[in-house]
Amino acid sequence: MNFNIIRCGRAVLHVTDLERSKAFYEALGFVITESDSDCVYLRGLEEHNHHSLLLKEKDEPVVEAISYKVYSDEDLDQLAGHFESEGTKVKWLEKGSQHALGRAFRIQDPQGLPVEFYAEMDSVDRLLQRYDLYRGAKVQRIDHFNCAVKDVQQSYDYYINELGFACSEYTVDDKDNIWAAWLHRKPSVHDVAFMNSDGPRLHHIGFWLKDPMSLIDGCDVLASMGYAKNIERGPGRHGLSNAFFLYLRDPDGHRIELYNGDYLTSDPDFKPVKWDLNDPLRQTFWGHEAPDSWFDEASIVLDVHTGEPVETGEPKLKKTKPQFMI
Amino acid sequence: MNFNIIRCGRAVLHVTDLERSKAFYEALGFVITESDSDCVYLRGLEEHNHHSLLLKEKDEPVVEAISYKVYSDEDLDQLAGHFESEGTKVKWLEKGSQHALGRAFRIQDPQGLPVEFYAEMDSVDRLLQRYDLYRGAKVQRIDHFNCAVKDVQQSYDYYINELGFACSEYTVDDKDNIWAAWLHRKPSVHDVAFMNSDGPRLHHIGFWLKDPMSLIDGCDVLASMGYAKNIERGPGRHGLSNAFFLYLRDPDGHRIELYNGDYLTSDPDFKPVKWDLNDPLRQTFWGHEAPDSWFDEASIVLDVHTGEPVETGEPKLKKTKPQFMI
Amino acid sequence: MNFNIIRCGRAVLHVTDLERSKAFYEALGFVITESDSDCVYLRGLEEHNHHSLLLKEKDEPVVEAISYKVYSDEDLDQLAGHFESEGTKVKWLEKGSQHALGRAFRIQDPQGLPVEFYAEMDSVDRLLQRYDLYRGAKVQRIDHFNCAVKDVQQSYDYYINELGFACSEYTVDDKDNIWAAWLHRKPSVHDVAFMNSDGPRLHHIGFWLKDPMSLIDGCDVLASMGYAKNIERGPGRHGLSNAFFLYLRDPDGHRIELYNGDYLTSDPDFKPVKWDLNDPLRQTFWGHEAPDSWFDEASIVLDVHTGEPVETGEPKLKKTKPQFMI
Amino acid sequence: MNFNIIRCGRAVLHVTDLERSKAFYEALGFVITESDSDCVYLRGLEEHNHHSLLLKEKDEPVVEAISYKVYSDEDLDQLAGHFESEGTKVKWLEKGSQHALGRAFRIQDPQGLPVEFYAEMDSVDRLLQRYDLYRGAKVQRIDHFNCAVKDVQQSYDYYINELGFACSEYTVDDKDNIWAAWLHRKPSVHDVAFMNSDGPRLHHIGFWLKDPMSLIDGCDVLASMGYAKNIERGPGRHGLSNAFFLYLRDPDGHRIELYNGDYLTSDPDFKPVKWDLNDPLRQTFWGHEAPDSWFDEASIVLDVHTGEPVETGEPKLKKTKPQFMI
Repeated sequence: MNFNIIRCGRAVLHVTDLERSKAFYEALGFVITESDSDCVYLRGLEEHNHHSLLLKEKDEPVVEAISYKVYSDEDLDQLAGHFESEGTKVKWLEKGSQHALGRAFRIQDPQGLPVEFYAEMDSVDRLLQRYDLYRGAKVQRIDHFNCAVKDVQQSYDYYINELGFACSEYTVDDKDNIWAAWLHRKPSVHDVAFMNSDGPRLHHIGFWLKDPMSLIDGCDVLASMGYAKNIERGPGRHGLSNAFFLYLRDPDGHRIELYNGDYLTSDPDFKPVKWDLNDPLRQTFWGHEAPDSWFDEASIVLDVHTGEPVETGEPKLKKTKPQFMI
Repeated sequence: MNFNIIRCGRAVLHVTDLERSKAFYEALGFVITESDSDCVYLRGLEEHNHHSLLLKEKDEPVVEAISYKVYSDEDLDQLAGHFESEGTKVKWLEKGSQHALGRAFRIQDPQGLPVEFYAEMDSVDRLLQRYDLYRGAKVQRIDHFNCAVKDVQQSYDYYINELGFACSEYTVDDKDNIWAAWLHRKPSVHDVAFMNSDGPRLHHIGFWLKDPMSLIDGCDVLASMGYAKNIERGPGRHGLSNAFFLYLRDPDGHRIELYNGDYLTSDPDFKPVKWDLNDPLRQTFWGHEAPDSWFDEASIVLDVHTGEPVETGEPKLKKTKPQFMI
Repeated sequence: MNFNIIRCGRAVLHVTDLERSKAFYEALGFVITESDSDCVYLRGLEEHNHHSLLLKEKDEPVVEAISYKVYSDEDLDQLAGHFESEGTKVKWLEKGSQHALGRAFRIQDPQGLPVEFYAEMDSVDRLLQRYDLYRGAKVQRIDHFNCAVKDVQQSYDYYINELGFACSEYTVDDKDNIWAAWLHRKPSVHDVAFMNSDGPRLHHIGFWLKDPMSLIDGCDVLASMGYAKNIERGPGRHGLSNAFFLYLRDPDGHRIELYNGDYLTSDPDFKPVKWDLNDPLRQTFWGHEAPDSWFDEASIVLDVHTGEPVETGEPKLKKTKPQFMI
Repeated sequence: MNFNIIRCGRAVLHVTDLERSKAFYEALGFVITESDSDCVYLRGLEEHNHHSLLLKEKDEPVVEAISYKVYSDEDLDQLAGHFESEGTKVKWLEKGSQHALGRAFRIQDPQGLPVEFYAEMDSVDRLLQRYDLYRGAKVQRIDHFNCAVKDVQQSYDYYINELGFACSEYTVDDKDNIWAAWLHRKPSVHDVAFMNSDGPRLHHIGFWLKDPMSLIDGCDVLASMGYAKNIERGPGRHGLSNAFFLYLRDPDGHRIELYNGDYLTSDPDFKPVKWDLNDPLRQTFWGHEAPDSWFDEASIVLDVHTGEPVETGEPKLKKTKPQFMI
C-alpha cells in the first residue's frame, strides 16, 4: 500500500518558556519564520515550507504531534479513509485552524504516538544561499523522528505494511526480535525510527546539517553562549546510519539531534542493514557511551483526541541498558 | 506518466588506455569492483550495486551509454513498451550479455543521447564504513549526468511529460526560452541536466562527495600524484544547484564533476528555481569564470544501434559563451 | 644580528570611502575594535592587541606603512640606532601621536617600502572563544606582508643579514637568481615575502584562518552579500608555502589573502625550500592560473618622510608573467 | 636566562609489542621513518627531522625520555654546564650512541621527569605535500608534552626562571595556588604542561593536526580498523588552550593527544590566561566529562641514571577529581 507519504514534515512541541526556547533554537541556527506571544515557527535554511518545528507555550513540555507531509489532498483523503476503515479514529483540523497549514488530520498510531498528516503548508523564501544569515550549526532541514515504543515489531509491521515505509537498518536482540528499526519514505536512512523502550514517547527530532564542520561550529557557538550544558551526547558517529551526530536538550528537555552523514536508500534491492544489539560499533562507531539520560529520558506525548498525556508502559522486550537505542 | 525510474545508475565510457584510466579513477577515490584487460568496473564507497562507472578500452574515447535504474523488471518492460508504442526503436541486451547486470535495453533519446535502462545489478559490499579504504576525494556515489543537447525545450518536455522527471532548477534566456534544465527522479537537484549546446554530447558525470573537505582533499591528493593538470575548473560554488564543485578531465578528456551541497527536492509544491542566463551568480556563486574548454568540450556519444558516433549539430538557441551551461 | 623583531604587526592603508571599506572588512570577518569618521581599527578574533589593520579615509588608496612589532622599547631604540648608523633616516612618532600605539619609528627600507617598528600597542579582549561573534571567514590574525620590489636579492640580504630574518622558501630563475623569497621572524613560513616586480609596492596582506572550511565559508558569505566580484583568485593551494589561499580585493583594490596551511619553521637546521620559477606546482599546487590582475596590480606605497607616493620602477630580473610571484 | 631551547622534540617510549604498536601508530597517520626488530622511528608528515616518537620494545611500557631540541651544540654545552653548576647530574649520550641523533644529554628534572636535550637530528624528506601518503588523522608534527607532577609551582618556577619558558595559560585553585600551567618556547600554547597529580608521570604527548576534519577522519579510520576502544576522550574542545582534541591510548596505554586549534603566543605583552579550577568551561568548553581513566592513569617514567622506574608520590595540592588537569 502506498499513500504517497513524502517525508516527515514538522513537530509540534509544547514548551514552558517561549522566549527561553526561542533564544535556544535561534542560537542553534534555526530560522524564525514567525513568532508571537504564544508560538514560534522555526525552519531550516533550505526549507521552502513555513516551518518544521512549532513551539507552543504551555504548562507542560510535551509533544502535541509529529507530522508527515503527503503528496496531495487526495492522498490525504485516501489515507484518512484508510485509517477509518481499519477503525482508527481520525481528527480533522480544517484549513485555517492551524496557521500556515492546509487541512490536516491527526490519529493516535497503534503504539500511541500522536501523528498528523497534511499535504499543504505555506511557502516561504528558501534561505539556502543566504549564507550571511547562517548561524550556529546552520540547521538545514528536518530529517527524522525517533520514537520510543513498547512493541517495535508492531510499529515496524504497521508502518511498512500499512503505510508503505521501507526499512534501511534494524537491530535485533539475541533471539532475533526486532529491537529497533529505521524506516523511510524519502530515500534517506529514515523519516522515523522506533526503539524498544518505555513508550510511547518521542526520543528526539533529527535535523540535517550540511557538513560535519557545521556540527563542530554549532558546539562552539552554543558553548560560547552558555549552552554547553545543553549538549547531552556527541559529537560522535553512529555505526547504525553512519550519522555524525550531536544530541542536545532544549531548555525543556526535548531532545534534538544534529545529523550529517547519511546515504541514499532509493533502491528496491537495497538490503536493510541488520545489527546485533550487542555490537559495540552499532550505537557508537567511535566516541563514548551515551549518558544515562539519553537512554532514560524522552518527551511525553499527548492524546490527539483528549489532549491529555498518554500514559507510558514497559516495553515488550527486556531493557538492556547499554545499547537499547541509537 | 511514471515508469518508476529510480535514479541515474551508471555510465559506460570508452577509454583508450585502460591502465592509465584505472590509475586516474583510483587516485580520485573510486573503488575498483573488478577489472580485466578490457574493462574496469568502478563504484563509490557507499554503493551496494556492482558499479556506477564502466570503462572499456577502445580506440575512441566516447560514451557508449548513460543508464537509469528502474524499480523492477515489470517497469522495465512497461517502459520498453512505451518507447516502442511511440516509435522509438528499443535494443534489448539480455541478462548475461553484460557483466553484473540484469536484462537491459537501450534507446537513442529524442536528442540523440544513448540511454540505457535496467532494473537489476549485482550486489556487492557497501564500503561506507570502511574508512580505512577511503582515498582521494572519497567518491560516495553517482549523482547525475549533464548533457549538451540542441533543443533543451524538447528534452525538458520529453523527460518531464513522458518519463516522469521533475524540474528543480532551470535557466532562461532573455526571451524566456529554456536554456538549461535540471531534472530529477530521486529527490536531489538532478539525475540529469540538459544544456543548450552542440549536441548530443555528454558534458560530465557528477559524483557525490560526503562533505566539502573531501573535495579539497581530492585536489591535494590528485596534485601530489601528478594530476594537477586534470583539474579543469573549481573548487567553486554554483549558484544554480548550490553545489560545491570540482571539474576534472580524465586521461581521455571525459569530464567528471565532484559534487557536494545539494538539497532535498521531494515536495510537489517545491517551485523550480528560475535563473536568468545572465545572472552572474548562476554559474559561479563565487570563484572564477569557467575556462573555454569547459564550455566548448564534451564527450561524443555513440548510436546504440549502429555503434557509430552520433554527429553533433548546432543548438537551437544562440550560443552566448560566458553562461551557456553550468 | 638580532634586534628581536617579533612578527609582522599591522598595516596602515588609505581608503577612499571608509564606510564602504568598513562594511567589506566586517563582512570578511574582521573585528572592529574602534572606528570614527576618519579611521577604522580592525583586528582578528584571536588578537589581543588593539588592531592589525588600520584604515584611514584619504583621497588616494595607498599604503602608509607596514609595521613590525619588536620585543621591547630597548630593542626599538637599538634598531633605530642601527638604521641611523647605516645612514637610514629614522622618523619617530612619539607615544600619543598614534592612537592605541606606543612610540614608533618609520623608515623607507632599501627598496623603498614604508616600514614601521613599535614595541607597544594597547591590549584588548581576545575574542578567540567568542564563537558567537564569528562571522564570514572568521579572520584570526595578521600573518604576513607580500611586497613587490625591484631587487629581491637586495631585500633578501638586508632582511636576513641586517634584521635577522630567516628564509623558509625561495624561488630562483633559470640562472639561479633569487626571484622571490619568503622570510620570517615568528616560526611560520613568513612575516614578509619579496617578489621581483615593479616596485616598491605592497602586493597583499595575509591573514590567518583557523581552518580550510573558514575560507569556504568566507566565500559563501561574501558572495551572498554581493562581494563575489571582490574574490580575485582561489580558493587554491600554493605549492610554495603549502597555503590554502584566497585572494580578495577590497573596495579600493588593496589585496587581502586569506591563508591557512602553513608549517612550523622554528628549526635552525630547516633547509629553505628552493623552487624553480617554472615549476608549475610552485604557484598553484592545484587550481587555476592567477588572473592578470593578480600579477599586474598592487598597492602604491607612501614615502614616510614626504608623505608622497613612491615612484615605482622596473624590476631587475626580466618579468616572466605566468610565475613571477605567488 | 635563555638557553635557546627551540621546542619539544621527541619522546622515547617503551612498548611491549613493537609490531602491535607500529600498526597502531601507522593507522593513526604517523610516518614510519625506520624500523627494525627493536625500535620504530615515527614522525609527522611535515617533520624534516628523523623522528619525533621513538618506540623501543621492552618488558615494561614506560617513558625513557622526553626531549627538547636546542639551537646549537654550543647551547647544548651551556645548558649542560648550567645544570651541573646547580648540582644536577648530567648524563651525556655521545653522537653515535643514539641512532639518527647527535650528541645529547639527559637529566632528571626537579620533579623527577627524564628530560633529554639535543641540537642535532638527521634530516629526512618532509612529506608535507605528499598528500597521497596521508592516512588516518594525518599527524603533522609533535606539539607538546603533558606531565603530572607533585609540585606544579616548583616546575613552573624552574622552567620559567631557569630554562626560559613562558606561560600561556594556567589554572589556580580556590587559594590561588597554581594547579596546572602551560609553558612554551615555540610561540604556541605549549611545549610542556604540568598538572597537579601523582608524579612524576607523563600524561600524554600532543601531536598537531592540520585541521579539525583530520581529527574526525582519524576517528573514522581508527574505528574501521578495530581501534574504537583506543579512543579515550573526545572529540571535544578545551576551554583552556582552545584545542579541538582527541585522546587515544596506544596498545600499552601511553596516551596520545591529537590537537588542533591553538593560537600564536609570540608577544611579550601577551597576558597568560588564568582559569579557575572549577570553571566548567576550562576543561571542556563543550562535550563530556573526561572518563576516570583520563584523570587517574598516566605513564611511569624512568630514572635516566639507573634506568629504573621513578616512584610516584602524592601531589602537593589536594586532588579534586573532576578538574585536576586538562
